[in-house]
Amino acid sequence: MSASSRYSWTAEARDVLRVRDGFVITGTDPSSTPAYDGEKDEGRADLAAGLDELGQYQERLFAARQTGDADDAVLLVLQGMDTAGKGGIVRHVVGGVDPQGVELASFKKPTPEELEQDFLWRIARRAPEPGMIGVFDRSHYEDVLVGRVRGLADPAEIERRYDAINEFEAGLVERGIRVVKVMLHISYEEQRERLAERLERPDKHWKYNPGDVDERLLWPHYMSAYQRVFDRTSTEHAPWFVVPADRKWYARVAVQTLLLETFEQIDPAWPGIDYDIEAEKARLAAT
Amino acid sequence: MSASSRYSWTAEARDVLRVRDGFVITGTDPSSTPAYDGEKDEGRADLAAGLDELGQYQERLFAARQTGDADDAVLLVLQGMDTAGKGGIVRHVVGGVDPQGVELASFKKPTPEELEQDFLWRIARRAPEPGMIGVFDRSHYEDVLVGRVRGLADPAEIERRYDAINEFEAGLVERGIRVVKVMLHISYEEQRERLAERLERPDKHWKYNPGDVDERLLWPHYMSAYQRVFDRTSTEHAPWFVVPADRKWYARVAVQTLLLETFEQIDPAWPGIDYDIEAEKARLAAT
Repeated sequence: MSASSRYSWTAEARDVLRVRDGFVITGTDPSSTPAYDGEKDEGRADLAAGLDELGQYQERLFAARQTGDADDAVLLVLQGMDTAGKGGIVRHVVGGVDPQGVELASFKKPTPEELEQDFLWRIARRAPEPGMIGVFDRSHYEDVLVGRVRGLADPAEIERRYDAINEFEAGLVERGIRVVKVMLHISYEEQRERLAERLERPDKHWKYNPGDVDERLLWPHYMSAYQRVFDRTSTEHAPWFVVPADRKWYARVAVQTLLLETFEQIDPAWPGIDYDIEAEKARLAAT
Repeated sequence: MSASSRYSWTAEARDVLRVRDGFVITGTDPSSTPAYDGEKDEGRADLAAGLDELGQYQERLFAARQTGDADDAVLLVLQGMDTAGKGGIVRHVVGGVDPQGVELASFKKPTPEELEQDFLWRIARRAPEPGMIGVFDRSHYEDVLVGRVRGLADPAEIERRYDAINEFEAGLVERGIRVVKVMLHISYEEQRERLAERLERPDKHWKYNPGDVDERLLWPHYMSAYQRVFDRTSTEHAPWFVVPADRKWYARVAVQTLLLETFEQIDPAWPGIDYDIEAEKARLAAT
């Protein structure tokens, strides 16, 4: 099945959502549902159907590796402002896949040990092994986002980092890792509502941090930093995808579709076997 | 809800399945369904209901840690002969939980680097962080199972390892990690059928390895090694549970129930908050 015929999509998600030259983040409507001819109900149905498809791809990717036939891997990089829905993607898109095939890395504020190393040190060691789906919940991009907005590094160092990131990602791709970089794009208003919900619900209180509002006040600076990230690091080998995320159902089905389209390109085959099936059946039957 | 009133259970799974003094592995029927008053349909329904319950416990465990209120964690150790269903437990029991709260470690044959260290070195570093559910798919017990059966270490070293394991696990428990050790117990006949299925189905061929039959021929030696493991390492602080596993539905609902009973003991509470909710609502509304 080609991606453009997948359920309610009118075009390939990777074409429509890809950041190209001239892309401007403030020109993207976070409440829109690009290339999707459906509403919440269709989105949920497509997500459920896609889980199974993704699971089958993952098993083939994993199998191909176990017998040493292929080095392919997939790395999903998730970025977005607080409450953008990164956790929901992890849970509802990646969570449907066999946990044995997933390597999830959540990057928090660097530890003192990590700060003694180059910013890519802690990232590189969490790159997925062949056969695996890696997920970065936040990533090396924090070092040019909060790093820039909060002035944690001087401008020359930030500039150096964009180049270092491009080189690093080119190395991943060379090793057979498909890098799918997603920015979940919510609106300023939607974030207010989601933070307010955390304050309303006792079971969500723990997710709220007064510092969230401090960061929120820097919103335009973060958008500027994201724009710079897109300008400098949406490369041929590892392009960015900006996914409108005010509607959670759309963001989830869109990220799932980006993954499915990536797997279509890999099209992992069941590995060949190096034993004689009939002989093994006979050996086994004799036990 | 107390465990003994949970759905179709007639007693607490941890009481019924626990390895106590006098336990003999060959006296346990792998096709039995101890303390469960139901068949496959009930088992599946209970599993589905329990997924949600387990997810809620996991979120509370995770939340309690994020705010630094608690150090609790859970470690599920899975052992069993080839095809016993460890992967199915990971997928169908653990897989229903938010991936952000799970740390899965699959232990294969040790690498040369790992062999240079004590056998517990690679294990200790994968112990779950506070707030997490850790899962070991195989574990340090391989070093006293295959290690013993295949003579990979001399008898004195194997003896030393039992004590080292008990000490190691006592340390985990001291740190707040509940250790739930499960042996999935299948019959010799059931293993033949499951291996045969891998030879029948092209999408399962990659899971079959001619070495599986070589290991199978050592079955009585493995049962003897397991018996020794139970005799030496089913401790007060970290008892073993032997789960009959010829019926996959029973094994899954039983392991899930052992986890739920563990969480009942922890009973993680939503953490307290250290900010003023009304003040934060006002701050947020002003943005």
